[in-house]
Amino acid sequence: MTDVSSTAGKEWKVVSIVGVGLIGGSFALALREAGFDGKIIGVNPPETLPEALERKVIDQALPLEEAAAQSDFIYLAQPIAAILKTLDVIDGFVPKGTLISDAGSTKQAIVTRARERIHRGRFIGGHPMAGKEARGVAAAEATLFRNRAYVLTEPDPELEKWIVRIGARVVILGPAEHDRVVALVSHLPQLISTALASSLATEPAAECVGGPAAIDLTRLALSPYEIWRDIFATNAGPIDDALALFISRLEQLRRTLRGPELEREFDRAADAARNLRRQNP
Amino acid sequence: MTDVSSTAGKEWKVVSIVGVGLIGGSFALALREAGFDGKIIGVNPPETLPEALERKVIDQALPLEEAAAQSDFIYLAQPIAAILKTLDVIDGFVPKGTLISDAGSTKQAIVTRARERIHRGRFIGGHPMAGKEARGVAAAEATLFRNRAYVLTEPDPELEKWIVRIGARVVILGPAEHDRVVALVSHLPQLISTALASSLATEPAAECVGGPAAIDLTRLALSPYEIWRDIFATNAGPIDDALALFISRLEQLRRTLRGPELEREFDRAADAARNLRRQNP
Repeated sequence: MTDVSSTAGKEWKVVSIVGVGLIGGSFALALREAGFDGKIIGVNPPETLPEALERKVIDQALPLEEAAAQSDFIYLAQPIAAILKTLDVIDGFVPKGTLISDAGSTKQAIVTRARERIHRGRFIGGHPMAGKEARGVAAAEATLFRNRAYVLTEPDPELEKWIVRIGARVVILGPAEHDRVVALVSHLPQLISTALASSLATEPAAECVGGPAAIDLTRLALSPYEIWRDIFATNAGPIDDALALFISRLEQLRRTLRGPELEREFDRAADAARNLRRQNP
Repeated sequence: MTDVSSTAGKEWKVVSIVGVGLIGGSFALALREAGFDGKIIGVNPPETLPEALERKVIDQALPLEEAAAQSDFIYLAQPIAAILKTLDVIDGFVPKGTLISDAGSTKQAIVTRARERIHRGRFIGGHPMAGKEARGVAAAEATLFRNRAYVLTEPDPELEKWIVRIGARVVILGPAEHDRVVALVSHLPQLISTALASSLATEPAAECVGGPAAIDLTRLALSPYEIWRDIFATNAGPIDDALALFISRLEQLRRTLRGPELEREFDRAADAARNLRRQNP
């Protein structure tokens, strides 16, 4: 029987991607482009595996049990609810010490479930801050993670090595801190965009007047609810806090609409927007 | 003495652009590209006129009094406060019936001032729903108005003809209705972006996590306050109403964060965002 410590940090020969969609497919392509020359196995969803094989995103398609049994690294790139279900069963299939990570958009619920269920394997939560409007393996691309932050809930030398190789920046954040931060940088923007689009819908002339600002800020409102359901279900507390903070800032702008304070608020906000860009070129 | 009705709708031979920056310069370039073969005179700001002449954005630089005296059409593309000052003096310089329009971002204050001051000339308020981050005549381009709405506060056949030729869509809205609509489609998005950037500034890890949604939605927060000061000063009422509406929508999302109502709200918002895009391709 292999000791856990001896497999930690070992070279990966076989990687399984569970959920070969936009993120899972892009991760596979990015690994390959970054020089990974082992085998990449695809697991789920069944309807996309033929396309993933044809596009050479994966080398082989196998059921979870068989894939997990031979993998050094397993990447769960499913929707959050599906990741939780995979965590319920996968530990029985893996050799001791197998590294498992995920790409779910919230971390507290997933890491908690992994702590309960993963004992033979080692689980590290992950969240690449990347994405685009198009979905599915057809939209996958090796460059998706380039210049993006990639959050891990704890360090791992081998996983970090590949994250750097695919062009991303490793950011280590505990699950609760991660969820608080993404409530602000990702979930709040989505709700803002949805609320703006639905505000514009109250004004018949808004549609025909349009304008670049409205177009830009309602882009996220096009996102289908299905990818958000799990996020709201697993991060409602931090999202509620983020909404409260944002509403209080708006109310403050509203009070200072005719005053000199507004200029200072614009300056502070512009500084924050510039800093964000400096770190995310 | 020329009768007003006889000059309405006549072919333009000389056009003056007062404020040859991004919008004024783009309007001049767009007119030229659309086939205008008369003379284009530039008035103000003095520091950009040499560059505008060199780039052949204008044919000649003249003081307002001399430019106005020979123009069939005068286009005020200054900041709102400067447009108001121009309206205070220009009527004494123009031949009877000269068409004057503007490109100011709010219309009620400008049209009211024009009604008080313009008697020899004819004034029609205008607002092209176009722009970009870069400013000044160096950033001017003939295509800036293409596929954009161009609001006029009342119809005019000759002006509408050129607006269509430069690729924009004419939308006729009274000044009060215009200001209500742009409070929603333009001023609200700016304040949202500023409030989001300043919310993100409260969370140290937000900067390094970044993410495409936060980057997108804080782009407007980079706008300098100086171009917004006049807008807030002349449209505070409608902006306050727009903020109130938007905050109420956010509060509603907040209440339904864990409920099935949220899905319907997402669907409605996505429909609104799609309609906006259908009209503004």
